[in-house]
Amino acid sequence: MRLSALVTKTVKDVSQSDVSRNAQLLTKAGFVDQLMAGVYSYLPMGLRVLSNIENIIREEMETIGAQEILMPALQPREIWDQTERWDKVDVLFKLKGAGDRDLALGPTHEEVVTPLIGRFIQSYRDLPKAVYQIQTKFRNEPCAKSGLLRGREFRMKDMYSFHMDQRGLDDFYKLAIEAYKNVYRRCGLGDSTLLTYASGGVFSKYSHEFQTVTPYGEDIVYRVPDTDIAINKELMNDRDALAGIIPNYKEGDEKNLEELKAIEVGNIFKLGSRFTDSFNVEYAGVDGEKRKVVMGCYGIGPSRIMGTIAEVLSDDRGLVWPDEVAPYHVHLVSLCRDESDISRCEEIYAKLKSIGISVLYDDRQGVQAGQKLGDADLMGMPRRVVVSAKTLADNCVEFMARGDKEATLTPLQTFYSVLVED
Amino acid sequence: MRLSALVTKTVKDVSQSDVSRNAQLLTKAGFVDQLMAGVYSYLPMGLRVLSNIENIIREEMETIGAQEILMPALQPREIWDQTERWDKVDVLFKLKGAGDRDLALGPTHEEVVTPLIGRFIQSYRDLPKAVYQIQTKFRNEPCAKSGLLRGREFRMKDMYSFHMDQRGLDDFYKLAIEAYKNVYRRCGLGDSTLLTYASGGVFSKYSHEFQTVTPYGEDIVYRVPDTDIAINKELMNDRDALAGIIPNYKEGDEKNLEELKAIEVGNIFKLGSRFTDSFNVEYAGVDGEKRKVVMGCYGIGPSRIMGTIAEVLSDDRGLVWPDEVAPYHVHLVSLCRDESDISRCEEIYAKLKSIGISVLYDDRQGVQAGQKLGDADLMGMPRRVVVSAKTLADNCVEFMARGDKEATLTPLQTFYSVLVED
Repeated sequence: MRLSALVTKTVKDVSQSDVSRNAQLLTKAGFVDQLMAGVYSYLPMGLRVLSNIENIIREEMETIGAQEILMPALQPREIWDQTERWDKVDVLFKLKGAGDRDLALGPTHEEVVTPLIGRFIQSYRDLPKAVYQIQTKFRNEPCAKSGLLRGREFRMKDMYSFHMDQRGLDDFYKLAIEAYKNVYRRCGLGDSTLLTYASGGVFSKYSHEFQTVTPYGEDIVYRVPDTDIAINKELMNDRDALAGIIPNYKEGDEKNLEELKAIEVGNIFKLGSRFTDSFNVEYAGVDGEKRKVVMGCYGIGPSRIMGTIAEVLSDDRGLVWPDEVAPYHVHLVSLCRDESDISRCEEIYAKLKSIGISVLYDDRQGVQAGQKLGDADLMGMPRRVVVSAKTLADNCVEFMARGDKEATLTPLQTFYSVLVED
Repeated sequence: MRLSALVTKTVKDVSQSDVSRNAQLLTKAGFVDQLMAGVYSYLPMGLRVLSNIENIIREEMETIGAQEILMPALQPREIWDQTERWDKVDVLFKLKGAGDRDLALGPTHEEVVTPLIGRFIQSYRDLPKAVYQIQTKFRNEPCAKSGLLRGREFRMKDMYSFHMDQRGLDDFYKLAIEAYKNVYRRCGLGDSTLLTYASGGVFSKYSHEFQTVTPYGEDIVYRVPDTDIAINKELMNDRDALAGIIPNYKEGDEKNLEELKAIEVGNIFKLGSRFTDSFNVEYAGVDGEKRKVVMGCYGIGPSRIMGTIAEVLSDDRGLVWPDEVAPYHVHLVSLCRDESDISRCEEIYAKLKSIGISVLYDDRQGVQAGQKLGDADLMGMPRRVVVSAKTLADNCVEFMARGDKEATLTPLQTFYSVLVED
């Protein structure tokens, strides 16, 4: 993609109405644009990031056998009455449809998926099953000042699993934890994301959150030493729960846990029969007896992950995208002015594309070197390649990974093979 | 994909509340499920079809230089007041957000895209530009009884182009017409879809609809003989307009046009400065003078195209998916019962996948041959391959394209290469 043709530009002055670091950086870089608090447009570069994250999630969910579907945002009141949640979910957007019908915009889809998949479950032979969707969701948040971290409209992957019994659910739940860890690792958040115990409700002792540690976090978690496990705030007064998590627990041990700020980047629940009770979803067991189907649910927000990456991995120069998430792998900066140098740089661009490397090419004329290099830092592609009269005179390019402090002069001869192997 | 593992099954008894042919067929085949009138879930096979259609559209829009973005469904009232459309678009879903703020669910995005892209346009050097999104849209339809053809929630590709002047718009508009024709051709609707003249509004003599001819259509169009051009009903009383479309027009000629029922599968408009006036989007010309940016808009509904394919290309046995749209290319039906035959059929499945052919594999045990063949017809993959003790004894499979009347016995030796070339 040529920067001269890209519909967006980097933005100098960003409104201070959205003070969150992620929104400021992503807006300056031309990746997103705020329409109102908690509601954003994704511009070409931002949508590429979002799609990359969604595809990573898709691959990891397919790996554990979940099948993708797409459910509606518009939901009739009747299904929310059936689970007695119409008045209980306080962030539910409510509206009137044709014929004065009460509708909700789905912030979650248990009310839709349970009867939907229930219709395809008759006997134990039809279990287990898991479905997921990657979809735009809505929450009428009273306050939305955290950029992509707390949206009124946001992207969500929600997965639902259906099982014969608790053991089947437990087994799949463990698979889901591993799949989630793979997602965070591939998104560059693996080292900073903790599997965090939270309260479980009626059907299970614990639920789990995935919390990415960062000084910009809104949540507080307590890390168990020498592990990637943490405990959330609400569990810290529950001694029984603590004893189940902290090895060789003695009263007061929780005071020695490290208190950390974090962003919640996923959560998973064992629902048991909470929803299959409401919709009477049963299966016939091996013995012919009818039993309630047992469910789990698993949420992760692609737009929130995008915001978290922007918060956690950026530096004072701008965004820093991990390989698998980056909109382009190489940011090729031309500082050439002579026709012959420009045409050699065009050849480098063509060659990179031909060997399958995705390139953002700053081919703009009349833009100063400082501006071009600053834009490259701000946009945060993993590798920057600068071509100028000086580098070409040496048959070289100037190569720098986004995290590096200094660029290295790399001969054109070896440059392509280095990139392909990288 | 193994049918034994697919979360859905074909459905015998479908509610008659949705009488449209497309919804009946797609529901029976387990591709979609109605949550309420005009609101559907897409099940795994249905979502594959929808994604295939969306990817075709994506490719064709990229080919003419449009860049993909994603805008919000939630829109504040203020931008609709600015274009004076808050009370004029009668299908606008309205709701209240936090702080009692008036919001709309976007049925179209001129109010968002015009100021958004306008911010990146300063001078003639920034033009032309084109952006598109593929997104879930909402219309509060008073009546929604046509399945995927008229949804209250539906998928939409909307593209917007920005130009210096009318000539730039005209040139891009012609490119868009060709891109749209490519989409219909690749979706199997090319031969039955007519470029249809409609009234144009203030800024242009005509707009255009793409109308797919079918006895199940809700619209009426009038075909110009020996062309793929038609005229819509509202233009038939406008002699000036008719004279611009019908070659060598004489008064009364319109009575000789063929009247056809059709489904509108796309529409394109020259907007002129209708929206750039409202949002004051200007550019500095070569001479430094400020001028209004000129816009076009281009809509096509992937979910409606899916419904149209189901209406138009199906037969009395079920759905018939064109190659590029089909969820899988081959429906492999095992009628094997012996362990050794089953294991040979598994080998065929593995081999097909290994050579890159996408396969729906009916590996179900205890299901009668009639049911399996009926399901294959209903689901409508382009090619059916039946493997049984009898075919295996001859080292053959039974091959049938979905449109064919009879199957042909094909030797295993040549079968794979035939499929690859197909």
